[in-house]
Amino acid sequence: MAKKDDFSAALKPAAPDGATILANERARSSIPVEDFSRYLLTPQYLDKQDRILKVLENDPLFKKTNQANLARPDRYKLALARGKRIRQLKEKLGWSEEDYHMAAALCDDVLPYHLHTAMFITTVCQQGSEGQKAYWMPKLESWEVIGAYAQTELGHGSNVRGLELEARWDPKTKEFVLHSPHLTASKWWNGSMGRTANHVIAVAQLLLPVSGPGPETKYKNYGPHPFIVQIRDMKTQQPPKSILVGDIGPKYGYDSMDNGYLLFNQHRVPHGAMLAGYSRVNPDTGEYIKPKNPEVVYGTMTHVRARLVMEARLALARAVTVAVRYLSIRRQFKDQDAPSNTALETNVLDYPTVQFRILPLLATTFALHYSGKAMGELYERTRKDIEKSGDFATLAELHSTSSGLKSLCTDISANGIETCRRAMGGHGFGGGSGLVQLNNNYLSKPTVEGDNYMITQQVARYLIKKVRELAQTVKSRATTRTEENLKRFLYSKDKTLNLNVLKNNEDIVQAFEWRSAYLSFKAYEKREIQKKPWNSLLIDFYRLSRAHSQSILVQNFHAALETSHDLPSPQTREVLWDLFRLFALSTMETEAREFYSCGAVSNEELDAVTADVFELMQRIRPHAVRLVDSWAIPDFLLNSALGRYDGKVYEELFEMAHRQNPLNEVTFNPDYRTDELVLGSGDGGHILSKL
Amino acid sequence: MAKKDDFSAALKPAAPDGATILANERARSSIPVEDFSRYLLTPQYLDKQDRILKVLENDPLFKKTNQANLARPDRYKLALARGKRIRQLKEKLGWSEEDYHMAAALCDDVLPYHLHTAMFITTVCQQGSEGQKAYWMPKLESWEVIGAYAQTELGHGSNVRGLELEARWDPKTKEFVLHSPHLTASKWWNGSMGRTANHVIAVAQLLLPVSGPGPETKYKNYGPHPFIVQIRDMKTQQPPKSILVGDIGPKYGYDSMDNGYLLFNQHRVPHGAMLAGYSRVNPDTGEYIKPKNPEVVYGTMTHVRARLVMEARLALARAVTVAVRYLSIRRQFKDQDAPSNTALETNVLDYPTVQFRILPLLATTFALHYSGKAMGELYERTRKDIEKSGDFATLAELHSTSSGLKSLCTDISANGIETCRRAMGGHGFGGGSGLVQLNNNYLSKPTVEGDNYMITQQVARYLIKKVRELAQTVKSRATTRTEENLKRFLYSKDKTLNLNVLKNNEDIVQAFEWRSAYLSFKAYEKREIQKKPWNSLLIDFYRLSRAHSQSILVQNFHAALETSHDLPSPQTREVLWDLFRLFALSTMETEAREFYSCGAVSNEELDAVTADVFELMQRIRPHAVRLVDSWAIPDFLLNSALGRYDGKVYEELFEMAHRQNPLNEVTFNPDYRTDELVLGSGDGGHILSKL
Repeated sequence: MAKKDDFSAALKPAAPDGATILANERARSSIPVEDFSRYLLTPQYLDKQDRILKVLENDPLFKKTNQANLARPDRYKLALARGKRIRQLKEKLGWSEEDYHMAAALCDDVLPYHLHTAMFITTVCQQGSEGQKAYWMPKLESWEVIGAYAQTELGHGSNVRGLELEARWDPKTKEFVLHSPHLTASKWWNGSMGRTANHVIAVAQLLLPVSGPGPETKYKNYGPHPFIVQIRDMKTQQPPKSILVGDIGPKYGYDSMDNGYLLFNQHRVPHGAMLAGYSRVNPDTGEYIKPKNPEVVYGTMTHVRARLVMEARLALARAVTVAVRYLSIRRQFKDQDAPSNTALETNVLDYPTVQFRILPLLATTFALHYSGKAMGELYERTRKDIEKSGDFATLAELHSTSSGLKSLCTDISANGIETCRRAMGGHGFGGGSGLVQLNNNYLSKPTVEGDNYMITQQVARYLIKKVRELAQTVKSRATTRTEENLKRFLYSKDKTLNLNVLKNNEDIVQAFEWRSAYLSFKAYEKREIQKKPWNSLLIDFYRLSRAHSQSILVQNFHAALETSHDLPSPQTREVLWDLFRLFALSTMETEAREFYSCGAVSNEELDAVTADVFELMQRIRPHAVRLVDSWAIPDFLLNSALGRYDGKVYEELFEMAHRQNPLNEVTFNPDYRTDELVLGSGDGGHILSKL
Repeated sequence: MAKKDDFSAALKPAAPDGATILANERARSSIPVEDFSRYLLTPQYLDKQDRILKVLENDPLFKKTNQANLARPDRYKLALARGKRIRQLKEKLGWSEEDYHMAAALCDDVLPYHLHTAMFITTVCQQGSEGQKAYWMPKLESWEVIGAYAQTELGHGSNVRGLELEARWDPKTKEFVLHSPHLTASKWWNGSMGRTANHVIAVAQLLLPVSGPGPETKYKNYGPHPFIVQIRDMKTQQPPKSILVGDIGPKYGYDSMDNGYLLFNQHRVPHGAMLAGYSRVNPDTGEYIKPKNPEVVYGTMTHVRARLVMEARLALARAVTVAVRYLSIRRQFKDQDAPSNTALETNVLDYPTVQFRILPLLATTFALHYSGKAMGELYERTRKDIEKSGDFATLAELHSTSSGLKSLCTDISANGIETCRRAMGGHGFGGGSGLVQLNNNYLSKPTVEGDNYMITQQVARYLIKKVRELAQTVKSRATTRTEENLKRFLYSKDKTLNLNVLKNNEDIVQAFEWRSAYLSFKAYEKREIQKKPWNSLLIDFYRLSRAHSQSILVQNFHAALETSHDLPSPQTREVLWDLFRLFALSTMETEAREFYSCGAVSNEELDAVTADVFELMQRIRPHAVRLVDSWAIPDFLLNSALGRYDGKVYEELFEMAHRQNPLNEVTFNPDYRTDELVLGSGDGGHILSKL
């Protein structure tokens, strides 16, 4: 951009400026930010972040200044170049896999190679036979082969059994014939497939002949199976005639990603294309050989969901960091009850209407953190049990918990980001918020990896099963916290507890668990005793899953504070307990009727919760800036004028508008009498000229 | 785009296709769609829509196919060209003002000329003196002068009194000196100002000298006043040296609009620049002459807010149209309780988890409609009362009602659009939803024209005043429905009503009004008896405004159905009553605790509401497609593959991806070993090359 030397250079924001205000805010609290960051994120994580950050900050390719102005094809190309550069840096600087992921996270683009690293390699590794792995893995790891994961179709997303793509075994040639019988069989949404990948894992219905060859051949469907298929020429990147593949076009977010479509027309692949680590087809007899251990695959999906809780916490922490810093700086309206000589307008974060939107979300970042950690530990324990002793006992619990938390936590964060954005008023709508791309991308999360409504059925199914076991066994063994809780509820004589949630943190946890148990028994009764249709209960199941997952968040938060002996200061511990109570009680307030109906908390006690929530917000308010500082999110990642660590909000907003905005560089004639349409000559022009 | 002749041409979606399904859906109901549309929208509106639509559909400039792919500068230029074309068409075809607005609405771009037509001309017309109007109006109406409205600043939005731009009167030269003392005084966000306008209305603090000239001159601040200022040369479009102006850069939405910034450095304008229809400065004495009738200006702001209810209804109707049509077509998962030979998967709109998100929103479109109509009538009545007899009696009620409804209805629609989007799963995240731009643009509404939290104070202030009047007067005159309601509450002996909301529609209305009155008295007590600080009550005020506005929506809906004698069929009336009950009871369900606490409805009755809501959804379900058809939103405006009238969802999604996507036309090398960044050569390249 043109350097501009004009009178704006001498102007400063009206006093007090953002830097002064944030310094004052930081002086109000003695939370030891660096120690607390290390406690939350580990020193290893922070060192890695610092190290990778320095590399990216010095490479102009990762400058985020103008990416929001690009035409979609250029936006994709920029991300492709960034993906290449990160991979090159990995080799050059000897980065680990974790370093690579840190670089991708800081770059903050959904990289066009993402599905190659995140799904393609993992799938071949986990579902390929030993021979397949030996053949493919070196090519995959060297990125000679770039792959995508082609499961979802135009007509089918969540319901994998409904996929239409067929893989028909031809015993004569010993090939599979991939064929899309309808338009709706087109693979759709598959990331990295639109332009980048040269191979895919195509998930297709495996059809084996049950009668002799010929036009009347009958086939038996063995359900969806994965096939590794080359879709483009390694040199020209063009597909063969029997394949149509491309990018599906612009979306709500994910501008940088080439989500694709893919159709097969009687496309033949060799016997070895079917990933044969579990089930396989005998190439000589055409016989289907069953998988030995289908539950391991199931464990992988669960891993993705478990990780989503930690991602949700970071996404929300970004938005809350921006909101807390900016709203501390922003002032608007003088307090009408203040003396008329009051000089300053009220700090926006001091308005209750702003606090009650932002501070519970600040508390939520910590709630998500502790449950994310607990999920990681549960996943590791389960994995070890399975691998070491073939013990699948905790897998069902892990699967249920991760499904429920995925649904709840991605909803909390998606809605929370938007709540932060709206609380910031006008500037929250501007590109300087740094939340535009975050929001647009994050809004995919409530849908992907299991729709947030649909997957709550898995939680309900699990809890109903647990109640059934309890109801049918005289002396059932309670091994998990969930089982213990259901048992406690069942054997409790008094079903009205009237817990003292205002005075007692244990009572808060008990209230959440009681509600979860109450709704579990109610769901069991409706489904198994009254025999109501499953689909008629989906709202009950959704509410049950929500209640159960909230109780897990509350319980993990509580347990972590009870057992954490490594907190950096007594004040930090005190503030964390306030955050625990704020999270739990503000959640309870929004769900008050259920807490009353289930007998956990009286109406009088619930009426008093609001005042307690406001008192907690008053107590937490002075620590707000230091608390968000503790998440240690670098300015480079925030990419936000409003959320800058140094508080130079207005200076940066003006800089972005006045010196970094390409729209101010182009020429055109605004006179309505002229009919010209001054086109860009690149992709923009390319698009416009096709009008 | 390249014509593609390949095997996809022969493919159809799996049966039943969308066209068949929508035909079946439409056959399930006998609502007379065309008659109902005319009843809702008037024949005049529908004729106008048809007439303008034909013109735009035949002009390639208005083709929306590729606009989402453009670089921001090209997106702006496209909208500028469209704005010019619409203005040219107006002249050529002799369009009325209403025709022009219909064209702009169907084009669906926020046009760069929008502030000229929407605010600039109106302001000069309403606030200019006769002489100023005679001078400026011909230039404005011929678009010789293109203007913007420059009020909001970098540091101040809602609080107009806090604006920093100064207009200092220089008695020697008889000029005003416009000056921005700080960076935060920069005008900011002002639409059409970034590149398009050559003039602005700049709102500045009027400073008149109170002591003699010289460096020690003291000034008195008369508050914000409007000045008409040329900011760019009429030929070169360049600003003078004492002005910095430009576009603020990309935002959450409004890509096509050049929201701007503007700084003045001791910029001099003549005495005549200050709009002098109300207050003015005597050029000879420097004396300030007060406005005669400040409330008329106040009425104009109210008009904008009143219109937002009708806009909210149309925005929501668009999203609901798309959702109802697509979710009728989409099928996913077989019913697990169905016999195993069931061929078809369940229609997504038949899942309760989808119905309870979408059908109450469908009901809400009608609730918004009747209150939008009522607001229009109240506005007209108030305007006539003021103009004809100087009677300002209903202005305060209009102002309060429009503020509360603005806050509630824009929240309902902004959240409702996103709810529709998420309910549509994966394809809801795609560009084919037609909701991306709608959502991005509409999300500004909760902030503009008064922040949705902040303006609820105006409702509370009004209701507290009404309670005070009632409390202080023995025999108060109740003229408005609000006053009657408060009076009824005050004089009611029994404060626990236990209304029968399941059986009786009047009881529903009464429950909403009772809750509103209860919260009004509670707010009055806290503020005026207990003398609590105003700011500490902001959450109470927000909840009061919400409750009051919900009661207005319910009451207007009920009154309209009671008095409508022109409904096209008995079945339509029946379905509308169901929609009324669904809107009211689903709202009641989400706010159940307040209905219980205020004594309006018992807990037992509230527990039974859920079952009633589900029954109502079952009754409304067969009419859903015809009901959205009745909003008569043309495909051209929907711009949605998912929401097409003909149901060809999958065909259109594939067409968009395979034949209309510029990313599939560009070339590049995905190999990570290459370091190339293949740039577009237009604005995209321009931006990238500056990295």
